[in-house]
Amino acid sequence: MEKEIIVQKFGGSSVANIERIKNVAQRVVAYKNKHTQVAVVVSALGDTTDELEALAFQLSPTPPEREMAMLLSTGEQISCALLAMAIKALGYEAISFTGRQVGIKTDKIYTKARIITIDGRRIAKAFKENKIVIVAGYQGVTHDDDITTLGRGGSDLTAVALAKALKAKVCEIYTDVDGIYTADPRIVKEARKIKQITFDEMLEMAFLGAQVMQARSIEVAKRFNIPLHVRSSFSKEEGTMIVKETEKMEEIAVRGVTCNKNEAKITICSVPDKPGIAAKVFGEISKLGINVDTIVQNVPHDRLSDISFTVPKADLNKAIKATEAIGKKIGAGEVLEDRNIARVSLVGSGMRLHSGIAAKMFKILADEQINIGMISTSEISISCIIQQDLADKAIQALHKAFKLEQI
Amino acid sequence: MEKEIIVQKFGGSSVANIERIKNVAQRVVAYKNKHTQVAVVVSALGDTTDELEALAFQLSPTPPEREMAMLLSTGEQISCALLAMAIKALGYEAISFTGRQVGIKTDKIYTKARIITIDGRRIAKAFKENKIVIVAGYQGVTHDDDITTLGRGGSDLTAVALAKALKAKVCEIYTDVDGIYTADPRIVKEARKIKQITFDEMLEMAFLGAQVMQARSIEVAKRFNIPLHVRSSFSKEEGTMIVKETEKMEEIAVRGVTCNKNEAKITICSVPDKPGIAAKVFGEISKLGINVDTIVQNVPHDRLSDISFTVPKADLNKAIKATEAIGKKIGAGEVLEDRNIARVSLVGSGMRLHSGIAAKMFKILADEQINIGMISTSEISISCIIQQDLADKAIQALHKAFKLEQI
Repeated sequence: MEKEIIVQKFGGSSVANIERIKNVAQRVVAYKNKHTQVAVVVSALGDTTDELEALAFQLSPTPPEREMAMLLSTGEQISCALLAMAIKALGYEAISFTGRQVGIKTDKIYTKARIITIDGRRIAKAFKENKIVIVAGYQGVTHDDDITTLGRGGSDLTAVALAKALKAKVCEIYTDVDGIYTADPRIVKEARKIKQITFDEMLEMAFLGAQVMQARSIEVAKRFNIPLHVRSSFSKEEGTMIVKETEKMEEIAVRGVTCNKNEAKITICSVPDKPGIAAKVFGEISKLGINVDTIVQNVPHDRLSDISFTVPKADLNKAIKATEAIGKKIGAGEVLEDRNIARVSLVGSGMRLHSGIAAKMFKILADEQINIGMISTSEISISCIIQQDLADKAIQALHKAFKLEQI
Repeated sequence: MEKEIIVQKFGGSSVANIERIKNVAQRVVAYKNKHTQVAVVVSALGDTTDELEALAFQLSPTPPEREMAMLLSTGEQISCALLAMAIKALGYEAISFTGRQVGIKTDKIYTKARIITIDGRRIAKAFKENKIVIVAGYQGVTHDDDITTLGRGGSDLTAVALAKALKAKVCEIYTDVDGIYTADPRIVKEARKIKQITFDEMLEMAFLGAQVMQARSIEVAKRFNIPLHVRSSFSKEEGTMIVKETEKMEEIAVRGVTCNKNEAKITICSVPDKPGIAAKVFGEISKLGINVDTIVQNVPHDRLSDISFTVPKADLNKAIKATEAIGKKIGAGEVLEDRNIARVSLVGSGMRLHSGIAAKMFKILADEQINIGMISTSEISISCIIQQDLADKAIQALHKAFKLEQI
């Protein structure tokens, strides 16, 4: 009988110290048996990546990317060697591999590389020898044999790509939370762990503020239909399954409430009401590589209108400068900024079929005396930009009104 | 015109922190010019290797060697990436390589691997692009593509082997001392830096206690006649050249005085005077992998003799146990140990031609009332085992009597 293969990925906090590495080793061997082969992907120990990055920035404000990948990839090499040792110390056969050794070939964008192919032969050989395979996450190698890294959260991507290459039954993502919740449990104490969620919902939640998994990895898992199991490395409880279609998808309109407090709003006042003005403004900003989100233009009066939009807080200063420059050029009025905003969103595949969700959301917020600054929607989400210090109150009210604690 | 190539090796203390890495970068670029190509070999930052090793030993008393090499090789990968960044920050082109990337192929003794071949093509290409090349020391890769390390001091070996492969003019070994001295300057304040020393003398001094360079690397340099320049990474002064033949070798009988306090003496008393007894004793001990040094057997009386020999202090307990066991078997008397010994040695190629050096040494020690316990000689050295607390006095007297401060 062909053995089943599972891929397990452990994040940095799961291997932050020797005790935790031993704990991970225990968990891994618990899955290894006559019928199962296990491939494990590990991130760097705790804050190793940040520490190495800090060293580099002491040498140069813009360290060369090829050298940066060379440097940062060591973090995962260390943790995979240590985990292999820990597993062997438990009496199991194990072998560690760098990204290159398992043939993870990437493009040449050194620190944000994309995986092109994975050559699974060395892993297949190790499986044949009944070894547990440990792979350094977050890294690969170009066709010129230069080391690359896959960008923040890249170990998730290694795990998903490996699961695809090995035809794994499931890809387990171990982290320091025990799954995806209907809302942040620190804000809503009734929040419930979601048992199953679709790739699309998870993607939407990741974009809208949930920080459990890197969106890119979810996209890849979706494309190849690889079930993900997000769970805690500190408990044996089942976490959240991310799948193509949940078992009772249609019944649930709203899967969860998310919140993003990392955006700021820019308003450019008294913009002349002429065609092509918006294109000019946002063309200029996109040139800076800044992602503009929700855009609202109010109804013009006296042939002048205000345009508001949101940008990541980290890009606010750059965006303000660019907006002021373009504002002058087109003869607009002053440019205002507002850091005190939050994006509160409802996400759920069932929204496609349930009408009235948006109207209900607006009413709930109105009942709470919360003013809605901007609104944006997608097929499976509705977001309202509100005052940041009212965000928790909004989330609690929405969670309760949509009865998410009963999911 | 063909450009000259130099190889520079910087040890762990030379790259212990960001400031020192910047200092090394400055030194390296000072050598790079229109006529010279520079390849730099670096050790791991400061105590990185020890720290990584300590992590491994927390997981297992005998960590698997393949995983150990995987783990420890990251130290040099980190330092070579950082040095490349530091050099580029000074406006020079630089590129870092792991041992594998420059094609350092080794055997499969994972943590004490021997270099089989070096494929210099990637370095040649980088030189053609006028780049300074930084190579991670201490590591290579097997033909199966597993990472190996070359054992303690292995970065010296990488540098020497690279110098051979690149046909370098010289291999500079940067360290925290500024050269080889006629005696330890902490003991003899008149000690002088030696300008030139032969490979054989340096090897003899390394075996006899001088700890500047790994003996294995000196042997390789000797075999391929690669001049070594041992010098300080903290000063611009010339250090000591290690060469095949020094310019005025014949005139100097004694090049330096060394001292080794890391040995202990074992005496097995009242050994029956029969043929084959010594072979039995030392056969048993060598089975344990213990290096026995100086052996002395006194003249037998009553058909019984005493046999004394020295072993590294680290192996003393193991050696005592084995000696006692064999002593019982052959009907010998008690086994004594003495940790309070030192080996004081004179080294110099000129000894081959100068007679009377040994006699003079014995007389000097006698004049100082120092008793000689054992004596051993090689073609270019004489060693006396004396009481350890008299070692400094002996070294000072010998240094003065042989006028080593005038070299």
